[in-house]
Amino acid sequence: MSKKQPETAGNNAAVEEALGYVRGCVRETPGYVPGLQPKPGERLVKLNTNENPFPPSPRVLDAVKRAADGMLRLYPSPRGDALREEAAKLYGLSPAHVLCGNGSDEILAMIMRTFVSEGDTISFFRPSYSLYPVLAALARARTVTAPLPRDAFARGIDGLPVPSPRAKVFFLSTPNSPYGFAFPTEWIKRLLSSFPGIVVADEAYVDFAPESSLPLLAENPRLIAVRTLSKTFSLAGMRVGFAFAHEKLVEQMMKVKDSYNLSRLAQEAGRAALADRAYLAETRDRIKATRKTFSDRLTGLGFAVVPSDANFVFAVPPAGATARSLYQRLLSRGFLVRFFEAEEISDGLRISIGTESDMEALAKEMEEAVHGDKR
Amino acid sequence: MSKKQPETAGNNAAVEEALGYVRGCVRETPGYVPGLQPKPGERLVKLNTNENPFPPSPRVLDAVKRAADGMLRLYPSPRGDALREEAAKLYGLSPAHVLCGNGSDEILAMIMRTFVSEGDTISFFRPSYSLYPVLAALARARTVTAPLPRDAFARGIDGLPVPSPRAKVFFLSTPNSPYGFAFPTEWIKRLLSSFPGIVVADEAYVDFAPESSLPLLAENPRLIAVRTLSKTFSLAGMRVGFAFAHEKLVEQMMKVKDSYNLSRLAQEAGRAALADRAYLAETRDRIKATRKTFSDRLTGLGFAVVPSDANFVFAVPPAGATARSLYQRLLSRGFLVRFFEAEEISDGLRISIGTESDMEALAKEMEEAVHGDKR
Repeated sequence: MSKKQPETAGNNAAVEEALGYVRGCVRETPGYVPGLQPKPGERLVKLNTNENPFPPSPRVLDAVKRAADGMLRLYPSPRGDALREEAAKLYGLSPAHVLCGNGSDEILAMIMRTFVSEGDTISFFRPSYSLYPVLAALARARTVTAPLPRDAFARGIDGLPVPSPRAKVFFLSTPNSPYGFAFPTEWIKRLLSSFPGIVVADEAYVDFAPESSLPLLAENPRLIAVRTLSKTFSLAGMRVGFAFAHEKLVEQMMKVKDSYNLSRLAQEAGRAALADRAYLAETRDRIKATRKTFSDRLTGLGFAVVPSDANFVFAVPPAGATARSLYQRLLSRGFLVRFFEAEEISDGLRISIGTESDMEALAKEMEEAVHGDKR
Repeated sequence: MSKKQPETAGNNAAVEEALGYVRGCVRETPGYVPGLQPKPGERLVKLNTNENPFPPSPRVLDAVKRAADGMLRLYPSPRGDALREEAAKLYGLSPAHVLCGNGSDEILAMIMRTFVSEGDTISFFRPSYSLYPVLAALARARTVTAPLPRDAFARGIDGLPVPSPRAKVFFLSTPNSPYGFAFPTEWIKRLLSSFPGIVVADEAYVDFAPESSLPLLAENPRLIAVRTLSKTFSLAGMRVGFAFAHEKLVEQMMKVKDSYNLSRLAQEAGRAALADRAYLAETRDRIKATRKTFSDRLTGLGFAVVPSDANFVFAVPPAGATARSLYQRLLSRGFLVRFFEAEEISDGLRISIGTESDMEALAKEMEEAVHGDKR
């Protein structure tokens, strides 16, 4: 790259001094590391960030194209009024209980900004969504984690631990990522009884699960349900998420929101996506069917597969193969899955459920990887 | 509205107790109040939030329509790589000096989150962008303001006050909103010498002004220039903003960023907008010409008009009319302009520059309002 303006900076003492000043202001945090994004043109079957293998509903694409007109010169609805109404209608709430976000990541960040101050504590299971500790670091908040046994799903409701940490907010990823199992609504009720703070049911994958926490909202003003259109609705590229909560909570969260946090096109896309329930049902059911086929197949190959209520599975390879080496091998064959460095989950891979044919092809590669030499 | 689930909440003591808990967590802040948005279908000439009267470039609409395809199922580039490159190319920087935001409001919020902690102080002129004190309240930061004389533009560079508050960050709205005049680059240099903290040149309107602070970036790692595509590029509805700064600052701000803060369509729209320089030049020049015609016209009617380097003018009506009553009267005639309750600016109106014909029609209404009875 040619020598551009600010690269001349850093060459003299005044610049160094100024940079020292800047460094002194900065909060030292590691930042969140999103899953690898293939470069444009790179041919990979991308199964590492739980995107939907199917395109968004054709009605969504039509709605976006229709909205791509001269009106883009005008600011969008600050609160996403039409989108809120559509979400309220679909989920049996009223618009006052709906907050729209630039993806559910922004919703989670807004929850932090509204309810958590420097020195406060938040809590979550370990393992769960790796964004939570990053949000805590940004807020200069403390974290208390509760261990989540991998076999928790099999323990029945009475066997599942009910944490009650001294914390302001408990972030519950349900279905859990990376394991994939969901917490029964009855259990969430128990959590709300034992834990006196705000419970955030982070339901990014809930449409693939048997039940959600929404029925609990009526009686529980300490509950916030968080949703996204990135997974079931195939709109990860569009950035639309929601919080559903008591209107007093929504009102407070509105105050920390950027004035116009959703573009006109995001609002239109979201509205059209929520309205096309037939498309949602069809694509969701296909993914659930493929999840079963793929899980059974891996189990047959000797993998330990956590039963999943999400659009991914967590699978531990049989003795003789490590998750890390399997990850590398699959990558070299054109399949990108998720390997986590964190020790407690470094024995397995989180694999998004793709199309029927992609998963069949992947299963063949995995078979070859773990049994190839023997056959 | 029919009785929906969470509205049954609030009826019993447990719910009230929980709400009390929630209220205890919340930061009391007033929140930012954006300019009034007309309801869909309401026929108003909207001149209150400095939107561009012209549609975005046809190339932008084409780019958005082309990008509205099945790829929306995939997450966008986390840092907006292609968009950063296009911005770097246009402004003679390298991509490492560019941070993309979900509108420049998100950029300003990210600056706060990166550099300002609870109890720190930020500073800005009074009057200027009313979001700054709201961001300070959200960060639990203190504010120190410096008064900005309305005739500062006329004082020459030596007459302009150079503040040096004890603060971490100085937010400089240049061109200033609501007054409209820009600070000369030479003066910004002086500010950087006298003020030891981070200077944020909030250049939302700078394309309508004679010069910008970008040439200062090379030697000033404490300078952050903030831009938006909402004004000159007619993309308020799309939410695209930028920070241009030393790469060390950009690196730090990246860490507080939501992982995927710009949708695929925002990135594509932004890229196409920056690339169509001919369209930018044409629409900008028309607005500047109309600004002159309209300002001259109002001056002729006895208004005191602050010379503007932006796409709006601040105009104080002649004796006999108040800004408040004029605002109401114009609204009743279908023209929505901006009236501020804040005392120091409640004597004038901030009026966005619209199309030639809209401004001609507005000028006629204003003439009738201030001289109608006499003629």
